[in-house]
Amino acid sequence: MKFDESIFSERMKPISGSVIRDIFKLLGDPDMISFAGGNPSNAALESDVVAELAQDVLKQYGPSLLQYGATEGMMPLRESTAAFLKNCGISCTGAEILPTQGSTQAIDLLIKAVINPGDTILVESPTFLGSLQAMKIYQANIVPVPTDEGGLILEEVEKAILRYHPKMLYVIPTFQNPTGITLAADRRKPLAEMVNKYGVILAEDDPYRDLRYDGEACPAIKAYDENGWVVYLTSYSKLISPGMRVGAAVVSNPALLRKMVIGKQSSDVHTPLLNQAIVNEYLRRGLLMPHIRRICGNYRRQMHAMLDGFRFFPEGTVHTQPQGGLFVWAALPEGMNAAELLPKAVANKVAYVPGTHFYPEGGHENTLRLNFSMSEPEAIERGMRALGETFKA
Amino acid sequence: MKFDESIFSERMKPISGSVIRDIFKLLGDPDMISFAGGNPSNAALESDVVAELAQDVLKQYGPSLLQYGATEGMMPLRESTAAFLKNCGISCTGAEILPTQGSTQAIDLLIKAVINPGDTILVESPTFLGSLQAMKIYQANIVPVPTDEGGLILEEVEKAILRYHPKMLYVIPTFQNPTGITLAADRRKPLAEMVNKYGVILAEDDPYRDLRYDGEACPAIKAYDENGWVVYLTSYSKLISPGMRVGAAVVSNPALLRKMVIGKQSSDVHTPLLNQAIVNEYLRRGLLMPHIRRICGNYRRQMHAMLDGFRFFPEGTVHTQPQGGLFVWAALPEGMNAAELLPKAVANKVAYVPGTHFYPEGGHENTLRLNFSMSEPEAIERGMRALGETFKA
Repeated sequence: MKFDESIFSERMKPISGSVIRDIFKLLGDPDMISFAGGNPSNAALESDVVAELAQDVLKQYGPSLLQYGATEGMMPLRESTAAFLKNCGISCTGAEILPTQGSTQAIDLLIKAVINPGDTILVESPTFLGSLQAMKIYQANIVPVPTDEGGLILEEVEKAILRYHPKMLYVIPTFQNPTGITLAADRRKPLAEMVNKYGVILAEDDPYRDLRYDGEACPAIKAYDENGWVVYLTSYSKLISPGMRVGAAVVSNPALLRKMVIGKQSSDVHTPLLNQAIVNEYLRRGLLMPHIRRICGNYRRQMHAMLDGFRFFPEGTVHTQPQGGLFVWAALPEGMNAAELLPKAVANKVAYVPGTHFYPEGGHENTLRLNFSMSEPEAIERGMRALGETFKA
Repeated sequence: MKFDESIFSERMKPISGSVIRDIFKLLGDPDMISFAGGNPSNAALESDVVAELAQDVLKQYGPSLLQYGATEGMMPLRESTAAFLKNCGISCTGAEILPTQGSTQAIDLLIKAVINPGDTILVESPTFLGSLQAMKIYQANIVPVPTDEGGLILEEVEKAILRYHPKMLYVIPTFQNPTGITLAADRRKPLAEMVNKYGVILAEDDPYRDLRYDGEACPAIKAYDENGWVVYLTSYSKLISPGMRVGAAVVSNPALLRKMVIGKQSSDVHTPLLNQAIVNEYLRRGLLMPHIRRICGNYRRQMHAMLDGFRFFPEGTVHTQPQGGLFVWAALPEGMNAAELLPKAVANKVAYVPGTHFYPEGGHENTLRLNFSMSEPEAIERGMRALGETFKA
């Protein structure tokens, strides 16, 4: 019998894959200036340091580092991650930390633990499309909540909670993907109080927070969590290496942590021990904070080169003014269509991601996401000029 | 509001976690002789070799090995895995290989791609409880099919297909976990033909096949696949390192492969590049076959020490006679209860896994699974003697 595609599950039938990752595949051309990715700069990735740490931990642990490990993760990494998170006001122990395959797996395990098909998840509009895809696979009802330049509008969140009775609110509070916007400091405690009041899980996805180039840091929403409703998701992908696939969830409620651990047992048994040990050693030796300071200096120059480059864009273009992260968000004058313009931009050797994909309800065709971490300031200026000319043509 | 456990999803509410992994936690006692695990021997894990390979691949690839990678996996590993699988009669290209986090993730992604709640999966009875847990999380209807000393009974499989219209048949054909039984060579082609005839996906989970100590190897069921209904799952966990978490699925139907890739995008983006590159380099340098020969020599002695140790067991005990793998399966005389006897065995410093957990429908309280890879032959004899005395008391 010929293989019959009607065999696919209902959850997977409508899912066609991440547009971003498909755009990535077009970027083999070395002449392309890519504003499409979300990668750290190659200059921020220390393969020599990782090689040394790999040798050291394999010598230190021996064959036990190649054995099966606990699904809950290696305690040294859980503890060093808890210590690292003190800088954003989170007070937790290693026992509340679940190491994961990047924060991607953390959000997957959290959804798996709580969301039934049809359950509502509130999201910022726009939001990270990778998370939208995970929510769609679990057949969640995704409801966008309006944002302004200070992130989620609290009155709108409360209205949506009362109307939709969501199980979860998904927020990227710092240098958001895709907009670069940061949730205002004075909205954070009220948001923690609101989810505690109504009994909604708040997934605080915060992988960019340490990439701050301007302004003052503010505490995580999780810093104001009282009853375990806030689950904090962090990642070493943007700080040490995305290819190593090490992130973590902070889950203060033991029953929820247990459900996520059980979900992870069946997903991949555990995060590779070598990768956990390398990241732990990186933290333990105090390499992370100096590294962050170094890469932030470079990223700051790149971000400002991009912000300056908007002078080449058509009059009427509006863009965000991030203080960190990897992304700037722009809205072209109404009537322009960033998806339709993309092939022309690619022909002119510049790539970006059309903004419509980041809206759960689509639309917003005039928007686009621009990443500045993969090119030097001079190339960013050239790319922004070429983009501006493409859009004006 | 106090965190309310009623928020958990229907899929996770009834799941309490792997009994095996909970037994593992009791094994910190260095005096314990553990027949409970499924780990490779520490002597089979070459941390010095892995350290050298890690250094070499990080030098060779540089920062690109720390960047994001393709969800589909690294092509060199996909190709070296395809080449490795030729020895079991599977003829495929790298494009059909999906590297995964062990075969655990491969089965998770396959179920995610095809199984709706309530869909039927046929399994051997008994079968691997980790896979049973994954099936339960996806709310599959699990139907056991009777086996004999040659594995699945073909007439019973066909009867179950006609009665339950399953979407999937899950088989561990070689040195099965938990029984150690191998699907007879002359049942393999008919089984491939049967799933092709009826349009059932056959998940062939085959992580133990290269650990053969006696008898003759036979081709994989996948070797007889004609239309992509057989998905072959392999793993480097038992051959190189479980802690590295590298396995692979062979998926010949491109549409199914695409659905599994999309599922993996949302689960963990990709398998860590460092781990993929280390395993590829291990294969590419021709280290695997000599390593397998070496570890099989040791495992053979361990297995025979265990088989000899049944002379200490109560009269009426029946056990399998595996030709490889990591497990022997035993049935104590009717009326004895291996779960009830476990605390006594642990008090006598020997651990095992009660067999009842491996039956989807429970029961079979007199059975147990014994692993021989974690102890030297002398300790195995001591442990079998202590177990025998515990059971006789």
